[in-house]
Amino acid sequence: MHISEKLALSRAEGKPTFSFEFFPPKTAQGVQNLYDRMDRMHDFGPTFIDVTWGAGGTLSHLTCEMVKVAQSVYGLETCMHLTCTDMEKSKLDDALKEAKLAGCSNILALRGDPPREKEKWEATSGGFRYAKDLVKYIRERYGDYFDIGVAGYSEGCDDNEDVDELIDHLKEKVDAGATFVVTQMFYDTDLFLEWVAKVRAKGIDIPIIPGIMPIHTHAAFLRRANWTRCNIPKHWTEALEPVKNDDVEVRAVGRDLVAEMCRKLIDAGILHLHFYTMNLAQATRMVLEELELLPDLESPLQKPLPWRPSLGLNRRDENVRPIFWRNRNRSYVARTQDWDEFPNGRWGDARSPAFGELDAYGVGLKGTNAQNIKLWGSPESIQDISDLFVRYMSGKLDSLPWSEAPISNEADTLTKDLIDLNRRGFLTINSQPAVNGAKSSHLVYGWGPRNGYVYQKAYLETLVSPEHIAELITRIERDPGMTYYAVNRDGDLKTNTPGDGPNAVTWGVFPGKEIVQPTIVETVSFLAWKDEFYKVGKEWANCHSSVSPSRYVIEDVMDTWYLVNIVHNDFHIDHGIFPLFEGLQVADMDKPLHRLEVPNGNATNGAPNGESTTNGQKSTLNDLVDAAKSAAETVTQGINGLAVSSN
Amino acid sequence: MHISEKLALSRAEGKPTFSFEFFPPKTAQGVQNLYDRMDRMHDFGPTFIDVTWGAGGTLSHLTCEMVKVAQSVYGLETCMHLTCTDMEKSKLDDALKEAKLAGCSNILALRGDPPREKEKWEATSGGFRYAKDLVKYIRERYGDYFDIGVAGYSEGCDDNEDVDELIDHLKEKVDAGATFVVTQMFYDTDLFLEWVAKVRAKGIDIPIIPGIMPIHTHAAFLRRANWTRCNIPKHWTEALEPVKNDDVEVRAVGRDLVAEMCRKLIDAGILHLHFYTMNLAQATRMVLEELELLPDLESPLQKPLPWRPSLGLNRRDENVRPIFWRNRNRSYVARTQDWDEFPNGRWGDARSPAFGELDAYGVGLKGTNAQNIKLWGSPESIQDISDLFVRYMSGKLDSLPWSEAPISNEADTLTKDLIDLNRRGFLTINSQPAVNGAKSSHLVYGWGPRNGYVYQKAYLETLVSPEHIAELITRIERDPGMTYYAVNRDGDLKTNTPGDGPNAVTWGVFPGKEIVQPTIVETVSFLAWKDEFYKVGKEWANCHSSVSPSRYVIEDVMDTWYLVNIVHNDFHIDHGIFPLFEGLQVADMDKPLHRLEVPNGNATNGAPNGESTTNGQKSTLNDLVDAAKSAAETVTQGINGLAVSSN
Repeated sequence: MHISEKLALSRAEGKPTFSFEFFPPKTAQGVQNLYDRMDRMHDFGPTFIDVTWGAGGTLSHLTCEMVKVAQSVYGLETCMHLTCTDMEKSKLDDALKEAKLAGCSNILALRGDPPREKEKWEATSGGFRYAKDLVKYIRERYGDYFDIGVAGYSEGCDDNEDVDELIDHLKEKVDAGATFVVTQMFYDTDLFLEWVAKVRAKGIDIPIIPGIMPIHTHAAFLRRANWTRCNIPKHWTEALEPVKNDDVEVRAVGRDLVAEMCRKLIDAGILHLHFYTMNLAQATRMVLEELELLPDLESPLQKPLPWRPSLGLNRRDENVRPIFWRNRNRSYVARTQDWDEFPNGRWGDARSPAFGELDAYGVGLKGTNAQNIKLWGSPESIQDISDLFVRYMSGKLDSLPWSEAPISNEADTLTKDLIDLNRRGFLTINSQPAVNGAKSSHLVYGWGPRNGYVYQKAYLETLVSPEHIAELITRIERDPGMTYYAVNRDGDLKTNTPGDGPNAVTWGVFPGKEIVQPTIVETVSFLAWKDEFYKVGKEWANCHSSVSPSRYVIEDVMDTWYLVNIVHNDFHIDHGIFPLFEGLQVADMDKPLHRLEVPNGNATNGAPNGESTTNGQKSTLNDLVDAAKSAAETVTQGINGLAVSSN
Repeated sequence: MHISEKLALSRAEGKPTFSFEFFPPKTAQGVQNLYDRMDRMHDFGPTFIDVTWGAGGTLSHLTCEMVKVAQSVYGLETCMHLTCTDMEKSKLDDALKEAKLAGCSNILALRGDPPREKEKWEATSGGFRYAKDLVKYIRERYGDYFDIGVAGYSEGCDDNEDVDELIDHLKEKVDAGATFVVTQMFYDTDLFLEWVAKVRAKGIDIPIIPGIMPIHTHAAFLRRANWTRCNIPKHWTEALEPVKNDDVEVRAVGRDLVAEMCRKLIDAGILHLHFYTMNLAQATRMVLEELELLPDLESPLQKPLPWRPSLGLNRRDENVRPIFWRNRNRSYVARTQDWDEFPNGRWGDARSPAFGELDAYGVGLKGTNAQNIKLWGSPESIQDISDLFVRYMSGKLDSLPWSEAPISNEADTLTKDLIDLNRRGFLTINSQPAVNGAKSSHLVYGWGPRNGYVYQKAYLETLVSPEHIAELITRIERDPGMTYYAVNRDGDLKTNTPGDGPNAVTWGVFPGKEIVQPTIVETVSFLAWKDEFYKVGKEWANCHSSVSPSRYVIEDVMDTWYLVNIVHNDFHIDHGIFPLFEGLQVADMDKPLHRLEVPNGNATNGAPNGESTTNGQKSTLNDLVDAAKSAAETVTQGINGLAVSSN
């Protein structure tokens, strides 16, 4: 959506709003950290974010990449900066094309910031001369597709101190087609408001968005003031000077000064504030908190859907997803990014597109081996893995290989049951409780427009050891209210669902609307998820040395355990799924797993597996597989049609 | 669906099933009566019906028409008879094409019955010689599209008494591609079962459907036995002869004899019975009742959707319709028959197709003027119309111009409120109560698969006099839970719905399925319904002489009253809509309406209106319109944006 449109909407509500600016970090780890931060800062509720143009080389490519990820994965309305003086036309065309493909419809058209490593702006040959040329060019090429912002310099810019002349330039940019103005940072609100009055007097009536620079450290405060040559009001200096050696105090005093400035702007009718976050969250968060603009726990942001909607190309109407990726949002978006159409209203419409190949999108385990071992330790038995899962379910661990975020408070009512299940060796992957018509404003379960009701069918996804799969399925099939899918790594699928149509497990009823059913369980997507699930598990195993017990025990689970999902279709019944597991307990959980004794007599306790060894041991691996298979078959005797194999 | 498939499904359940044969009546009134009868006989739950081939001339066209109506409007799986010996190939091609276009996928391929008015079959030149040629031809042209039935003669046919030779012929027809057999009528079950054994011994293993002729009268019983030369078992004659002069007794004895025969067939493993209804319901119903095969009130037929699904071409997946046509199913099917796609899952997908033109499909008032006046009388005041509506709401009147069937028992909980409203001059057209999750097996509200829950938002559609429309809208808009549309004949629309998306007012949640939302309220379809509504009302007025007070009072309502629909979106609240009308009452309802005094002094009380009068009175009509407009405007002062006009 266009920024100017969003501003008009919130202006109509008389509500102050804000936005965040980020820049492309220099290292891969920095990028990952920034993504995580952008993800968290989504919850502050910015109207949009923008990403500065990484002039030249890989950094400009990174800008496009960040815009795409912010739009698609994090569902943040994103504005891409674009500078013109240091750009070939072809590169500019590429950037605009990429922005459009990413679903981005907002550009901040700039003449050209100095590259971050230089201190001074330099015009380069080629490309356009002025920002207005760029504005004109975008309008010519793309019509009204992009909302186009331009810079405003309330206290002059680095090569021109004549504010009036700069307002004339601004008028030219507006006449060329700009639809909003973002200003340079400033500290002197009076000067700024005078400038706004002058701009308005020139007949410029598009939104003016003040750029706000929170105070992170005293040194940075001075450096930035110096760099932009903006005026520092006397009372700012008086307040900051005495505490300048105490970073904590600087931030507290800075928060008050900046918040005071923001209040003055809001009182003057300037309802939208643009924060230069410098890729940091804290100083900005403190100001927003002081202004009481952050959503609080009692009335969090109204969620439009139970999952974070993507704003990627053609995705704005997407409103149905399989439940399986709930804890791996990013991989779902990546794997479906090439779909021509996204399901809207029902899953059926989008059943044809295949899920992208696992390898094509870097869908896998996050973090380095060392980081992951630090995080999840070196389990040597099912007991160790179970303990890990119990810690996650208890909120004492922030992630698991398949869950990139801490367990959601939605699972609170299930915590006891989940911990109990994991203690008994059922490793739970995903779950939701039954909800029989909670208000759409409900703090935990609510989503969608006001005055509606939301519903859920109880759902549980869990790993089941081969010793229990037969009994569990027998129990599930005894209850006509339950539907399930069970699959092992090889894709031997067992299910009692009628047909292969989707099962809606989350839906909402709203005034004046069709029923919305944003989460479903369904065959094709479950099989795609299964591949991803076992691949991630395999990668977790591979974090450990090939001769380690950890590698062996995790691999054993991946090779022989079943991934099972169960839906209790009667959403009037609480906790209906857990009784299925009554009395089931994985045997000898605390026994460190040993390599199986294989026919040729090679003792394999703790020995390396086939993958990283020499030819000689190849047969050993196959023998192992056979042995495991025959063991599994013994277990599953009596399950009609349920093939079990272990590789 | 293919008949052989349907038979296989019910055979798997071990459930006896049945089907009905109809033939094209000779008069238009006969056709209408038969449609009504087919509609009612749908509720008996036949697996399919078939329509005999009206050999030659208009009757053959009627067969195609009946097949189409049965499939599309009444949702009956239909098999079309087709004879070949008296047919040009081109005519045959047309018939097959029409059948396919009607959504019919079952053909009974016959050599050729004698036309009903002749007593003897005659081969005509041209076309095919044997039924097997026709079977082969259909298979060549249409592959597996059609299921093809052929006739079986267990006691010989009119020109061949050699049963064994006829079995050889049957084998040839099966080898040519026939997939089921329907037999000639018979009374001797033993003979029949012997014949079945012989047929099976010949290696014919497709389903054999016995043709059952219920006994309507003694004369018909004898005539048919004579005509088909079938054996009458001795105990039949002994039972019928003594009562032959008492029609009621004949039917009772006949019922027992035929039921006994059917039981013997079922016991022999022949689970499907095909009834030659002779276009009559009673004798067949009596046999089915005796066999306990009719659905009873305690466990009626499982309704797949809250409305009768069509089996027309491309319509089998249709599962969303606007609520407005609930009481005019046939006109909805007619007006949408040319759509390329039917909404499935959500209305949004089918929003583009326009509703057919009113005139193109004969969408209008049923019955002749005389019939309608007999039915609805000659109202001379609003009070008279109100009384008529009250009688309908009380179940004492079987139809209204806009409701072709008696009021549904779904409205039972609303009866008191509806009667009260109509007494006060609000003429209610359609309504449903709020349902907050009834079992899908619920006797009144239930539909869809077992173990599900169904929901409804409360809905009311009513005519509102100009004197109350402003106040009513003010009251509705005060409640954030209500959405409404109000429109007059000219299409001046007022609504408070957000956007123009549909509002689901009936939906169901079922195990392992997406949410089904079969009924919606929405702008475009409401405007199409509005046109139909006022057209039907106008036609009701036109049943009365142009100089009658009835014509005037009905026309006045059509010209000036508003059609309003109201949805109470909170389905947890019962009877939420009716309090809106508290204290409102149409004034002077019992005063016979007079023509308005118009400026040029023409007294118009009871005078003819413009439509059927001479030139001189044209201006009078216009004046009337102006006067009515200005009266209406006075009433609606203060309704912002709600234009009112009266013509």
